[in-house]
Amino acid sequence: MAPAPSRPGHDIERLAFFSDAVFAIALTLLAIDLRLPDSVAIVTSGELLTALADLWPRLYSFTLSFVVIVLFWIGSYRTFRYVQHVDGPFIGLNLGLLFFVVLLPFPTSVLGAHGDLLAAVVLYGVLAGVTSIFSTAVWAYASGRGRLLSPEVTPAIARYITRRAALVPLVLLGALPLALIVPQLPFVAWSVIAPAQLLMDHARHLDELAVPTVS
Amino acid sequence: MAPAPSRPGHDIERLAFFSDAVFAIALTLLAIDLRLPDSVAIVTSGELLTALADLWPRLYSFTLSFVVIVLFWIGSYRTFRYVQHVDGPFIGLNLGLLFFVVLLPFPTSVLGAHGDLLAAVVLYGVLAGVTSIFSTAVWAYASGRGRLLSPEVTPAIARYITRRAALVPLVLLGALPLALIVPQLPFVAWSVIAPAQLLMDHARHLDELAVPTVS
Amino acid sequence: MAPAPSRPGHDIERLAFFSDAVFAIALTLLAIDLRLPDSVAIVTSGELLTALADLWPRLYSFTLSFVVIVLFWIGSYRTFRYVQHVDGPFIGLNLGLLFFVVLLPFPTSVLGAHGDLLAAVVLYGVLAGVTSIFSTAVWAYASGRGRLLSPEVTPAIARYITRRAALVPLVLLGALPLALIVPQLPFVAWSVIAPAQLLMDHARHLDELAVPTVS
Amino acid sequence: MAPAPSRPGHDIERLAFFSDAVFAIALTLLAIDLRLPDSVAIVTSGELLTALADLWPRLYSFTLSFVVIVLFWIGSYRTFRYVQHVDGPFIGLNLGLLFFVVLLPFPTSVLGAHGDLLAAVVLYGVLAGVTSIFSTAVWAYASGRGRLLSPEVTPAIARYITRRAALVPLVLLGALPLALIVPQLPFVAWSVIAPAQLLMDHARHLDELAVPTVS
Repeated sequence: MAPAPSRPGHDIERLAFFSDAVFAIALTLLAIDLRLPDSVAIVTSGELLTALADLWPRLYSFTLSFVVIVLFWIGSYRTFRYVQHVDGPFIGLNLGLLFFVVLLPFPTSVLGAHGDLLAAVVLYGVLAGVTSIFSTAVWAYASGRGRLLSPEVTPAIARYITRRAALVPLVLLGALPLALIVPQLPFVAWSVIAPAQLLMDHARHLDELAVPTVS
Repeated sequence: MAPAPSRPGHDIERLAFFSDAVFAIALTLLAIDLRLPDSVAIVTSGELLTALADLWPRLYSFTLSFVVIVLFWIGSYRTFRYVQHVDGPFIGLNLGLLFFVVLLPFPTSVLGAHGDLLAAVVLYGVLAGVTSIFSTAVWAYASGRGRLLSPEVTPAIARYITRRAALVPLVLLGALPLALIVPQLPFVAWSVIAPAQLLMDHARHLDELAVPTVS
Repeated sequence: MAPAPSRPGHDIERLAFFSDAVFAIALTLLAIDLRLPDSVAIVTSGELLTALADLWPRLYSFTLSFVVIVLFWIGSYRTFRYVQHVDGPFIGLNLGLLFFVVLLPFPTSVLGAHGDLLAAVVLYGVLAGVTSIFSTAVWAYASGRGRLLSPEVTPAIARYITRRAALVPLVLLGALPLALIVPQLPFVAWSVIAPAQLLMDHARHLDELAVPTVS
Repeated sequence: MAPAPSRPGHDIERLAFFSDAVFAIALTLLAIDLRLPDSVAIVTSGELLTALADLWPRLYSFTLSFVVIVLFWIGSYRTFRYVQHVDGPFIGLNLGLLFFVVLLPFPTSVLGAHGDLLAAVVLYGVLAGVTSIFSTAVWAYASGRGRLLSPEVTPAIARYITRRAALVPLVLLGALPLALIVPQLPFVAWSVIAPAQLLMDHARHLDELAVPTVS
């Protein structure tokens, strides 16, 4: 089958659309876990407030994963913005990323139910970390050797974004041993990621950190 | 990374698509709560009708949230229709809006199960109110100082739509104290919103109120 | 706000996309009800086959609703294919259609669990019937007085498709009294709809019945 | 209704989009089954790890179905890439394919719960096999007699892809009798499919096997 150079945009659009749809569905499914337990009898507003307060850990893990998935989506959005054509390894890496994005609601649910347990925090950190490795790999592959990206992305900028993306798995996985001291400690370290990237971008006079449009 | 002025339409389309997908999924997930309880044995049509009648409050809260999410989607549809480019704060406000849209099935479910309780009504009103604040903020930011909108939207019209949008959180949150008298009283006040906007539009000779196309 | 005649295609695309997404999600959510009951202990292949056989009514109602939703989607697909611009009532009717499409998994689930009960059949028939009324109304409104459709759709063809669409609620609702004799009898009548439309199309030398592309 | 030759691309896009959305949702819904059982009390990290280990079969069947659905999506992606127009039978075969894709989370769930039982393996193999028959039929119909495809797909290549696609149902269904010896044996045979196709493609100097872009 000969190449079809006249429709590369179509190929990119459909792959980007498929990715976006999976991101959007995974995002929305996170909320399925937010529900009152069937087992608790609720008759008064006070009992309802108590039951809602008991859901606090689930709301926390929901919010955490919403932010995490949105950040991965923003990375994907930016990658597709500058990609000019796609090839086999790029599609494969993207599908690997989607596999772990689809999986993320599961450790989120475990974290919501058992956030005080070391094993729940480690499970979450490992799976989010592997997801971020794929997210980094998608950009690194696309930008490596001027392979798939538009020439408007200079090699210096491409390398900077790769390093910036590689920071995420480093912190996600590197902070996990802190859970041995206090299970919740890695979350504190993780919350440093976004501000750190913001500072890095400021130092480079890039106006927006986490947003895909750069002007 | 240099600006890519040749593809601003692409950026808007993808963000609009992602938003639309989240709205569509949140809308459809509302119906997941509409199911017969496993605990009730149903053998005759009479017992089934009784069980269906018991679902009435859930059908009510489903319908309420369907309308609420559709109204937010219409606002989003209109915003994206007139937006000419996007920037970081605009994307951030949109993602904030999506966060609360994804959350809405949860207070809907609580309201369906415990609509007679003050706490359920307040939870719903507060979350719907915060969602409408984000919805208003998205338009206010996009239209402020001729920032992101097409020039066909005159400043007078832009301000009018901002005021019209700001009415929604005012009524949603302002009517909540009525729940102290009778828990269901805020719903009555809320149902005034759409007709009031219709009248406002008529007074301005705008043909369609809640629809995105204006001709 | 002045009309934006340069982007009518954009408006139609986004509304069509939003509709399609809701149809696709409703379709996929139908399958959520297909699951083995938690309460039954299954140790051998024989017990699993028994449990699967017990799911037969749910597979039946899943298949029925899959076909029903696909038929409504095909109608929607065809409408949007020939629509040249959209207005308020058209959007309103479409949102009404989507409301009942989103609702359809609920009567499907009731039918799967209690298909032997008159009340379950009537619930399904009434809700599918109301959905088909909206589906017919969307086309009737769009095609009426040459309002929104492309001129390539002649008035005679437009009227024919309206009549053809109006047949569906007539049969869905008209056959419901048959359930008083045997609850399953309406299904037999309903299965006449597609072949009848096929014959009608043949008589008019329209090659494809239920498909949106006409060549 | 006269043909509308000016918008064939629109028809293909919408059908491809609808398919993609269904694939994306089915893919994401697979993960819904990955959840800790309510019935098990978990207090320590050790108990959580035990409960997670018990989910291993579900993670296995989730991964299997993720790969299976992704492979069908890749087939669909490629078909739509080279299709130049669509007709009734093509749409019908695609909807048949989507029906079985939507169904796949069900045998996946059964396999995850009862993967040691012959009946669960046979159910999975039969449903995946029928899905692959539809997937093959979509391509075979589209490519047959130069019907719907772009002329850049030569008859020799089209036939090769048909044979390659037909291999999938042959192996999926042909290996099922092996389950009579050991229930898990068909999985071993199934895992041969992708490498075999890779070798076939190499022999023909086609660089990418399972990816839609061929360059």
